[in-house]
Amino acid sequence: SCFLTLGMSYPDPRQREEFIKMEASMRLGGNVSLSPEEQQLDAHLSKLMLEEMAREDFLPALHFFKARPLIRSSHIYGLLQKMPKGAALHVHDFAMVDVEWLVRNVTYRPHCYICYTDDRSVRFYFSSGLPKPLSNCSPWTLLEQLRAKTVNVTDLDDSLMSYMTLWTMEDPELAYPSLTVVWKRFEQAFKATWGLVTYAPVFKDYFHEGLLQFYRDNILYVEVRALLPETYELDGSTHDTEWTMKTYQDTARQFVEENPDFFGARVIFTVNREINPALLTKKVQKAMKLQVDFPETMAGFDLVGQEDTGRPLWEYKEALSLPAAQGSNLSYFFHAGETNLQGTKSDQNMLDALLFNTSRIGHGFALLRHPVAKMLSKMNAVPLEVCPISNQVLKLVTDLRNHPAAALLSEGHPLVISSDDPSMFGASGLSDDFYEAFVGFGGLSNHLGTLKELAMNSIRYSSLPPNLQEKAMALWQRKWNKFVTENL
Amino acid sequence: SCFLTLGMSYPDPRQREEFIKMEASMRLGGNVSLSPEEQQLDAHLSKLMLEEMAREDFLPALHFFKARPLIRSSHIYGLLQKMPKGAALHVHDFAMVDVEWLVRNVTYRPHCYICYTDDRSVRFYFSSGLPKPLSNCSPWTLLEQLRAKTVNVTDLDDSLMSYMTLWTMEDPELAYPSLTVVWKRFEQAFKATWGLVTYAPVFKDYFHEGLLQFYRDNILYVEVRALLPETYELDGSTHDTEWTMKTYQDTARQFVEENPDFFGARVIFTVNREINPALLTKKVQKAMKLQVDFPETMAGFDLVGQEDTGRPLWEYKEALSLPAAQGSNLSYFFHAGETNLQGTKSDQNMLDALLFNTSRIGHGFALLRHPVAKMLSKMNAVPLEVCPISNQVLKLVTDLRNHPAAALLSEGHPLVISSDDPSMFGASGLSDDFYEAFVGFGGLSNHLGTLKELAMNSIRYSSLPPNLQEKAMALWQRKWNKFVTENL
Ligand SMILES: [Zn+2]
Ligand SMILES: [Zn+2]
Repeated sequence: SCFLTLGMSYPDPRQREEFIKMEASMRLGGNVSLSPEEQQLDAHLSKLMLEEMAREDFLPALHFFKARPLIRSSHIYGLLQKMPKGAALHVHDFAMVDVEWLVRNVTYRPHCYICYTDDRSVRFYFSSGLPKPLSNCSPWTLLEQLRAKTVNVTDLDDSLMSYMTLWTMEDPELAYPSLTVVWKRFEQAFKATWGLVTYAPVFKDYFHEGLLQFYRDNILYVEVRALLPETYELDGSTHDTEWTMKTYQDTARQFVEENPDFFGARVIFTVNREINPALLTKKVQKAMKLQVDFPETMAGFDLVGQEDTGRPLWEYKEALSLPAAQGSNLSYFFHAGETNLQGTKSDQNMLDALLFNTSRIGHGFALLRHPVAKMLSKMNAVPLEVCPISNQVLKLVTDLRNHPAAALLSEGHPLVISSDDPSMFGASGLSDDFYEAFVGFGGLSNHLGTLKELAMNSIRYSSLPPNLQEKAMALWQRKWNKFVTENL
Repeated sequence: SCFLTLGMSYPDPRQREEFIKMEASMRLGGNVSLSPEEQQLDAHLSKLMLEEMAREDFLPALHFFKARPLIRSSHIYGLLQKMPKGAALHVHDFAMVDVEWLVRNVTYRPHCYICYTDDRSVRFYFSSGLPKPLSNCSPWTLLEQLRAKTVNVTDLDDSLMSYMTLWTMEDPELAYPSLTVVWKRFEQAFKATWGLVTYAPVFKDYFHEGLLQFYRDNILYVEVRALLPETYELDGSTHDTEWTMKTYQDTARQFVEENPDFFGARVIFTVNREINPALLTKKVQKAMKLQVDFPETMAGFDLVGQEDTGRPLWEYKEALSLPAAQGSNLSYFFHAGETNLQGTKSDQNMLDALLFNTSRIGHGFALLRHPVAKMLSKMNAVPLEVCPISNQVLKLVTDLRNHPAAALLSEGHPLVISSDDPSMFGASGLSDDFYEAFVGFGGLSNHLGTLKELAMNSIRYSSLPPNLQEKAMALWQRKWNKFVTENL
């Protein structure tokens, strides 16, 4: 080249090339080898990425509520939707299914009562007779009767949906001006959903529908964070934790029978981090017992809820030390570092999660600001479950190019992409989050190798034992090869 | 403690403490030793930080235009304002001085003409007779006559100010909806200022006033990025680059004579990165000559302007290789990585700046996403000049807690805090940026050691030769000791 003829050029362009290659190989997926067919698809993918970079508004810089229609109609989304994305490792029990299904299917079932709370939310309850009155709520009305009296039922149904999700057509900055407000609304939506999904017949159907929605999004395996609540019947009788766990297991098995190219689901038992430390001991003991009784389905234990207002992990150290002390093989999958409050107790949760030997870190949004925790996470291959849309909607970051995962991805830090509470954010399966991650966390630096590694990571870092991981990986590989061939 | 009596506790709380200490010592300033008096001030500072953390709205998460009144009235700002902050290493020639001074002082001088451009900006020109008409601009009017005809002169003067700054009382999200818009307005404001500050008598006064404003903000030394333009006189005659350079030198010397506890100023010659690569050779040659002719004042060379739309450094490789080839000791201080466009050519500028042996990196906003460039910057102690308010106003980041410098600071990466174009952003000296950095880049993890190290870094990483650095450091240390004693 011309540099060689110059002889004395400075800086050495070959060294420059070396540095550029070194950086490319350090990226997540930077060392994935691509077949000739994959390279062909990769070239196509680069062109689609250029389309995204050329937009007037770069979509991952916009709030997802504004970007969604544009994302969904992009060529790259179309490809990501079809792509076998592997496993969804961070989704919550009651935020898997589009709220439209809850309203159009569940609330139309017989015996569904509704009341309106003083703080502008709703509660639902299925009952053969009139349910007991709730404090701070209107008298219960049978939804069937309410609909009969309502002129515009579509409007009513739309309003019911809006109670169960954060998704809105309003300007999200105005609707949710602060982190406190958005978390309050998040918890409200959760409570509005509660009476529907803890009704035993719905509980089973909801999980089935959740698996179906992820399956249709080309996910082959799901690990669900589950509160394992009591469920109830029309006569007010209730089922215990074991029933709930068994229902998850049966539903997952049944789903795999119906769809043999789906691999299955496991459960991470979660408890809200508002719980009194003394009471957590019982929950951890329960988790250890479930681990023994449901080895196929029980994956581990976690604490959930807003970290900044909840108790730090270290306050639970006695209870969390039990499994190691008692020789249990209970695994942890702690939410940690879902915070921007630097130097506070909640900011310390990531280090403590790692010291408690967590298998993965839920979010780890603050990890980049904790070099020791980051080093431990990398050295011990403890991946982050990165949920871009969740972090944006819950106001940790605006422009997703500034999400810490963009830097972590460039360093090849172990991570997987997940969707946390898709129904709350108006997202679906993993495809929306994959769009944000692929386009937002690297732009033109990303390529098919990035996607392939993210998908493989989701199986590699699942709770599945090695023999099942191998099977899941083989299943994914077949789907992947088919995907590559079909999209050249 | 209770852990020792437990005997079998897990994880080991002493190891936990070790990790926490390790992380604290890795931070920028984490190993600075504090005298008993400094520790006392540090304890006070922690309380002030808690006040900031307890606010309903965390100020570095807000746009600076909204946060400024709250920042200015905070206790921590009061302290930062008084603190000897060392040197301002990244400020531009014509954005140092509050626009109020330009309007109230400069535009009231005789012979000041104004015209209004078609794209809603203004141009100024000092002239003994009517200046030649400008295309796309109204006929020139003598400002004195315009004021005489104007009922509300305050309104007129306010409008003149608004042309020369991005600062606005409007909602900044509405006023500047996109990066393209805000950069366009930025360049407009720059052009509006041009005719005032390149008038030779004003040029000298402007720099003097700039030094004064930084001196009053407790800065002891300034390195100014300077275009070294031709300046003009009333009769239309002009002065060349050497005059401009000499004026900087004379003004800085005079200022030090007037204020012996100010250390001085040096100049980094800058050229817009729109320049044709062939023409850059001449500029680099000019820079090498200035280095020989003004060794006291000439610090080095840089390229400026919007990186995403300008040429990448690598296109200038021939010209930029000249100094090394010719044995010149010209230093580089490249703007690089002021971008969110990952994987593009402008995203490559940081690596190239480092390969060209840059002494510092202006911004390096994208460095965190480039692990090899980051490693080179750390290994070779090439600091970033971090300008938080600039990056926020120019729309690279919203919530400053997500600014990459928060992570870099936690790793002890070499960096200094500067203000880029304070007059454009409604900021003053370095105190506003120090507030954003100290509160936003670490919150409760930051302490007096952080501030002390940031101040010392600004001298350590200045272009001053070692003997002068030693003198500057001694001067700073005396001021610092006085500051500590006076604020206990
Ligand atoms: Zn979660
Ligand atoms: Zn600059």
